[in-house]
Amino acid sequence: MRLGGIAAQIRHHGRKDLMLAVFDRPTPVAGVFTRSTAASAAVRWDRSILSGARARALVVNSGNANAWTGGAGSETVEQIVQAVAAIVSCPIRHVFVSSTGVIGEVLDSSKIKNALPRLHRQLTPKNWTAAARAIMTTDTFPKGATRSATINGRAVTINGIAKGSGMIAPNMATMLAYVFTDARLPARLLQRMLRAANRGSFNAITVDGDTSTSDTVLAFATGAVALGFNPTSLRDPRLAEFRAALGSLTVDLAQQIVRDGEGASKFVTISVKGATSSFSARGIAFSIANSPLVKTAIAGSDPNWGRIIMAIGKASQAINSEKLSVRIGPYLTTEGGGVKAGYDESRVAEYMKGDEIDIDVHVGVGRGRATVWTCDLTHQYVTINADYRS
Amino acid sequence: MRLGGIAAQIRHHGRKDLMLAVFDRPTPVAGVFTRSTAASAAVRWDRSILSGARARALVVNSGNANAWTGGAGSETVEQIVQAVAAIVSCPIRHVFVSSTGVIGEVLDSSKIKNALPRLHRQLTPKNWTAAARAIMTTDTFPKGATRSATINGRAVTINGIAKGSGMIAPNMATMLAYVFTDARLPARLLQRMLRAANRGSFNAITVDGDTSTSDTVLAFATGAVALGFNPTSLRDPRLAEFRAALGSLTVDLAQQIVRDGEGASKFVTISVKGATSSFSARGIAFSIANSPLVKTAIAGSDPNWGRIIMAIGKASQAINSEKLSVRIGPYLTTEGGGVKAGYDESRVAEYMKGDEIDIDVHVGVGRGRATVWTCDLTHQYVTINADYRS
Repeated sequence: MRLGGIAAQIRHHGRKDLMLAVFDRPTPVAGVFTRSTAASAAVRWDRSILSGARARALVVNSGNANAWTGGAGSETVEQIVQAVAAIVSCPIRHVFVSSTGVIGEVLDSSKIKNALPRLHRQLTPKNWTAAARAIMTTDTFPKGATRSATINGRAVTINGIAKGSGMIAPNMATMLAYVFTDARLPARLLQRMLRAANRGSFNAITVDGDTSTSDTVLAFATGAVALGFNPTSLRDPRLAEFRAALGSLTVDLAQQIVRDGEGASKFVTISVKGATSSFSARGIAFSIANSPLVKTAIAGSDPNWGRIIMAIGKASQAINSEKLSVRIGPYLTTEGGGVKAGYDESRVAEYMKGDEIDIDVHVGVGRGRATVWTCDLTHQYVTINADYRS
Repeated sequence: MRLGGIAAQIRHHGRKDLMLAVFDRPTPVAGVFTRSTAASAAVRWDRSILSGARARALVVNSGNANAWTGGAGSETVEQIVQAVAAIVSCPIRHVFVSSTGVIGEVLDSSKIKNALPRLHRQLTPKNWTAAARAIMTTDTFPKGATRSATINGRAVTINGIAKGSGMIAPNMATMLAYVFTDARLPARLLQRMLRAANRGSFNAITVDGDTSTSDTVLAFATGAVALGFNPTSLRDPRLAEFRAALGSLTVDLAQQIVRDGEGASKFVTISVKGATSSFSARGIAFSIANSPLVKTAIAGSDPNWGRIIMAIGKASQAINSEKLSVRIGPYLTTEGGGVKAGYDESRVAEYMKGDEIDIDVHVGVGRGRATVWTCDLTHQYVTINADYRS
């Protein structure tokens, strides 16, 4: 495969905003998408071609989400995939497309069509950074990760790039991410592995609780490395190392998105244990992670654990207040339904000044557990979103 | 009834923080409370005595929520109601209590007990403002409202006071509010009327999506005005005017809370029509009202209607994108699944500079409708909650 990114002048001048990846042969592909009922035209296209699909190209633009653009939006997608199909010499159903940026404005496809030939000539097998840069919106750094694994003794590689900074919330993919592996894997199995990895990575992060119309994660298995057997079962032990590497790579990309959360000054890990189920634990963890009062307290380095209790309480999940504990970093703040005896707030306040905050909650009713990642809510978030049109 | 408020030095010095209302005789009372699973000790007490209860006194302190204070919290409540019962000469089960302020710190009841005799001597039938001031926390103004109505030809009055500014979200009462009427009404009927009014008022507002551990609405019918009949049915036409007045008063108090939302610079009314049900319409309306990206756009006077589409999309409620419309004030922004033909953003931008913003959404699938009220998300919200312990 070859890829790259250039400036097509879609919204801002002189900034990379168009990314293209081309596969040498029809490539098995898996995908998960936003659950928004206002999904963008690109998401609707990708969904319509995903089942049993092969991919020859992936084209992504930033600067305009082509979402809520009605019939014009669908026509734009058609024009884009036709232009890419003509350059790559493939059917349009082998072209996957994403768009990210402002919602509700018609995307001018001529800028993309004009830039495509030049971009196509620049593609190389190693141009990951240019590709990662071209899909950025309010992101402040390009996001990528790589992992190696062996399957049945054969060395394979997984590369991934992602974007996302605001409008990040847990309802399916919640941003754009693309994963590429040279392992020869069937699409159906790739889809099941992607879903499993997605649950513990992209679906376990939140910046602001707002879900995008464009969220997309696509995984491509280019097949350069033959595996010497025909993998069919997710539980095949020969796939264990690959699945772990895929999980690690997606968590890495997801955490990069949180670290680049709009206005974020701190990276926060919230672990909930002892819930009735993992579903219940996720509900409690996201209630804490999305609480504006918890997020502003973290921004202010305020060890205000009472707000964590508030967020646990509003989650409407079973808890045992007598057994519930909340730790901030290594410090136990509450147990037995009240403040811990001898609690020394000054030490926790000192810990809160750091830029990596761990919150560990045990709710004392079962064995369900979940971990989610988020960031704080700062003045800068308001500045980015109130003072400028993103 | 008589009431008043004084400074008991509970948290801040020289600021009114203790409110007492005393009823001349055992008075029918109705109540709705937070659904938080971490409800405060005061809420648990009120709940335990509500059924079939009569009230002789209501005592409320600000500065400390007495929430998540374990056994010590329950003991504090007992000491407070015993002190009030001794002064008023009534059983402790006739004393209702609320506490609001910081969560997780033990409330020192001795300050309240010491201040009660002095406060009790100051009570008057008209001291509404002192009472409303004493229950404030981050509120910037005292909140009160009054309405008149006739029932069966008899003139009755409803007075109410409320507090609330942050940690305001729609899961039952979401703040403190107290409603008093001289109409002689049975408690069971009063409870049903309060529930109905609550749904369209206190349960239809949000500041930050965070639900308090202390939310309480209590209604008292002192019975000074005999009605000349025994009201039993909610649908009795002789109660229609009173019910309308109660609805109007609770909406007034709820809107005062939103207008005083932490850091709020604009008052926002969100109406959703055409949903499959009123439940679905509420889900969409609150998805818009709680979206940080919508709220920051409003703070920045940015007519970014694409974010409203995003918030509708993430609500996971049925919509018809072809029929969906979004109006900002009098301006139609989108129809037919895309931007309205001839849309002039400059006029909407001018409208957005005002401090009262109306957003009207029609989702085109049914007859369900709902209206909720909220405020914008400003730098001042972050300052209030990141820089100071509230």
